[in-house]
Amino acid sequence: MVNTVENQPPHHVVIVGGGFGGLYAAKALSRADVHVTLIDKRNFHLFQPLLYQVATGAISPADISSPLRSVLNKSKNTKVLLAEVNNIDPQAQKVFMGGEAIHYDSLILATGAKHSYFGKDQWEEFAPGLKTVEDAIEMRHRIFMAFEAAEKETDPEKRRAWLTFVIVGGGPTGVELAGAIAELAYHTMKEDFRNIDTSEAQVLLLEGLDRVLPPFAPQLSKQAETSLTRLGVTVQPKTMVTNIEGDVVSLKQGEEVTQIHAKTVLWAAGVKASPLGKMLAESTGVECDRAGRVIVEPDLSLKEHSNIFVIGDLANFAHQNGKPLPGVAPVAMQEGQYVASLIKQRLKGKTLPQFRYFDWGSLAVIGQNSAVVDLGFFKFTGFLAWLFWLFIHIYFLIEFDNKLVVMIQWGWNYFTRKRGARLITGKEVLENAKAGDSNGYYTPENGRQTVNL
Amino acid sequence: MVNTVENQPPHHVVIVGGGFGGLYAAKALSRADVHVTLIDKRNFHLFQPLLYQVATGAISPADISSPLRSVLNKSKNTKVLLAEVNNIDPQAQKVFMGGEAIHYDSLILATGAKHSYFGKDQWEEFAPGLKTVEDAIEMRHRIFMAFEAAEKETDPEKRRAWLTFVIVGGGPTGVELAGAIAELAYHTMKEDFRNIDTSEAQVLLLEGLDRVLPPFAPQLSKQAETSLTRLGVTVQPKTMVTNIEGDVVSLKQGEEVTQIHAKTVLWAAGVKASPLGKMLAESTGVECDRAGRVIVEPDLSLKEHSNIFVIGDLANFAHQNGKPLPGVAPVAMQEGQYVASLIKQRLKGKTLPQFRYFDWGSLAVIGQNSAVVDLGFFKFTGFLAWLFWLFIHIYFLIEFDNKLVVMIQWGWNYFTRKRGARLITGKEVLENAKAGDSNGYYTPENGRQTVNL
Repeated sequence: MVNTVENQPPHHVVIVGGGFGGLYAAKALSRADVHVTLIDKRNFHLFQPLLYQVATGAISPADISSPLRSVLNKSKNTKVLLAEVNNIDPQAQKVFMGGEAIHYDSLILATGAKHSYFGKDQWEEFAPGLKTVEDAIEMRHRIFMAFEAAEKETDPEKRRAWLTFVIVGGGPTGVELAGAIAELAYHTMKEDFRNIDTSEAQVLLLEGLDRVLPPFAPQLSKQAETSLTRLGVTVQPKTMVTNIEGDVVSLKQGEEVTQIHAKTVLWAAGVKASPLGKMLAESTGVECDRAGRVIVEPDLSLKEHSNIFVIGDLANFAHQNGKPLPGVAPVAMQEGQYVASLIKQRLKGKTLPQFRYFDWGSLAVIGQNSAVVDLGFFKFTGFLAWLFWLFIHIYFLIEFDNKLVVMIQWGWNYFTRKRGARLITGKEVLENAKAGDSNGYYTPENGRQTVNL
Repeated sequence: MVNTVENQPPHHVVIVGGGFGGLYAAKALSRADVHVTLIDKRNFHLFQPLLYQVATGAISPADISSPLRSVLNKSKNTKVLLAEVNNIDPQAQKVFMGGEAIHYDSLILATGAKHSYFGKDQWEEFAPGLKTVEDAIEMRHRIFMAFEAAEKETDPEKRRAWLTFVIVGGGPTGVELAGAIAELAYHTMKEDFRNIDTSEAQVLLLEGLDRVLPPFAPQLSKQAETSLTRLGVTVQPKTMVTNIEGDVVSLKQGEEVTQIHAKTVLWAAGVKASPLGKMLAESTGVECDRAGRVIVEPDLSLKEHSNIFVIGDLANFAHQNGKPLPGVAPVAMQEGQYVASLIKQRLKGKTLPQFRYFDWGSLAVIGQNSAVVDLGFFKFTGFLAWLFWLFIHIYFLIEFDNKLVVMIQWGWNYFTRKRGARLITGKEVLENAKAGDSNGYYTPENGRQTVNL
């Protein structure tokens, strides 16, 4: 029996988005006296914190993806719908997917964020970001194709451009990408080429502020920089990117203006909220911040629409210390669980005190043996921090779907320094091959739009 | 020192294709006194016998792919070139890749085969085949999208079409695909949907001859049929496909003509050799058979061009028992090794007796617990055959690149009956979502051309 009062349909909770926020909310409601519909445009939950490992050929997309239907198959009150929401009518309490609509009693919006070029969308073509599986495959394609192109290139200047990797943005993703590419070039692929010495590759990490990992304590940023430098990464703080076009990255360091020739430029500098935020602002009058995040009430609901909740990267929650909570998985998880509890309490005629985020700390990994961990009361770096990072990620990764394999893959990669998922794929690759370019080789330009695995 | 005679450049062996044939030839030449160039249009070797496991969501493409450069990185006399050969000049001893050309002393052609529709190429759109990673991802996309579409479909007839899976061709690939899809529908995904009962799905395996697995002994075909039927597959021997258009498959069984409505049709019925065969026929005057395979001499060389060898699926070698050797991995491997030995002998002024294929036997797997093994002198089926199949595949899979992970993934899948790689991906998926179709859902039609992982 799902109904509490006879003949009254059960309370219907609609959750939009199967990321950390939406999935934790759905899980927390799985035994509640409600009906749940989880809508996502993908059929899987993606463990985004490890996406950089797909981009650098260490693991496969499926290793960090869990089919939403499997994750929720024991939640008999929950339906999964593969669809995209394109409108919301808060008066009629309806969510629209094209022509179809479903009615909700409570609505949880958790559609997250994507990368942003601060208005310079033309840079995307030259400097892809990393939010989806397709993004990761595109990055992997560019990274490995660059080494292939360098192997064939006879002009030393062009070869240098193929062997120059620029990562824009020194946050956790940028640091992780730079460390992984340095390891690829200086260790993993060292023996693989005959014409080039991969250890001549340059890996540049650009950061606008005065240190990498700005959200961490300064001494950890310093440690991270030391570790990155030891790996072979050139860290350039206080560096603003002023333009990206073709293979030229224009920089400003203080008053000095320079240009770098790099065939592979990766974007890890900024995000903006999913367009659902703006849509919501139009239909409900709620405010959004500059990044498109919805300003939420202390209980994560909307002003004047207490049955609509916004969580995760889509939300701007600034009721704890005045600053919005960061766009990280633990925030989304805790928000999802809080909203689920609040809905359950409300059904009993009760309520909950405002949401409070419990910050367990921050961590970022720098290559194979090193990480930085900031637990607030305790900060540490190096191998122990790496083991801690590993433990935390495996713990959460295997929560839904026992991704035992990833653990073993990592152990294997660790001891062999191998990366097995170095596939350059895509229908375009094959078609370009057939057509043949000027010199009959593949060129990375040929395959650039290729996004397959 | 590579040169045997001073001031004479070393013998240059060019190998085209990094499949089983080409790779085994390259490996066998790695310590020889020659230079080797291996040309492939992909940067990885693909373990094709397990591709059906990628198509059905059990493992990831990277699990059965090994970067060619890693496999050959200890072969210091070997270069890997990522390029496609589009012409050969046997007089000048040159291989062309677009405008570029390289000179060879010995040439080994091993570019394999792709699936063939016996002149009905228009069927490909409706019934994709399985030869590349992209093919497998396309199949995976269609299979899992079909269940999603069925879940949303309210019209019972259309829903039935979504839940009908037709596999054309009862050879090993067809049998393996049918078995895997039946397991998906009747076991793995049983609990995952709310509107449909996946066990209502129909899996039809069509075969033109009077039994499945025609190359095997008749009693093994019978056993395979029994195992397939037990899994829930409907086996239809003596069935000719006369047309495939949209979601309608037209059949002829004896004199009876029928039609099946199926949204997912998979092609496992025939192959033709790579176009390099025809190209070779034009430039050397050598003969090809109807499937485009090059007729080779008893030592796998070409008539009048004893320094050009053709091996694997591209070759028609009929000097053993009058019938061409089958297009399977062991034939290609043995041919590659033979040609490598012959080249080494020739450099010493010697030769070798003609190539002889040693047939270890045939095997095919039918679902999780059953396989058929035909060793000639000994035939067996069932669980023991399945263990044997597993052992053989793991043995060869880990030969180049310790794909330990696959073994563990299989162990895990076996005990949990899970399939973790059930991703529906692709840029088109996202774009269609944005555009939104008539009812705002994804439809498999929307994403049909999507080939990503």
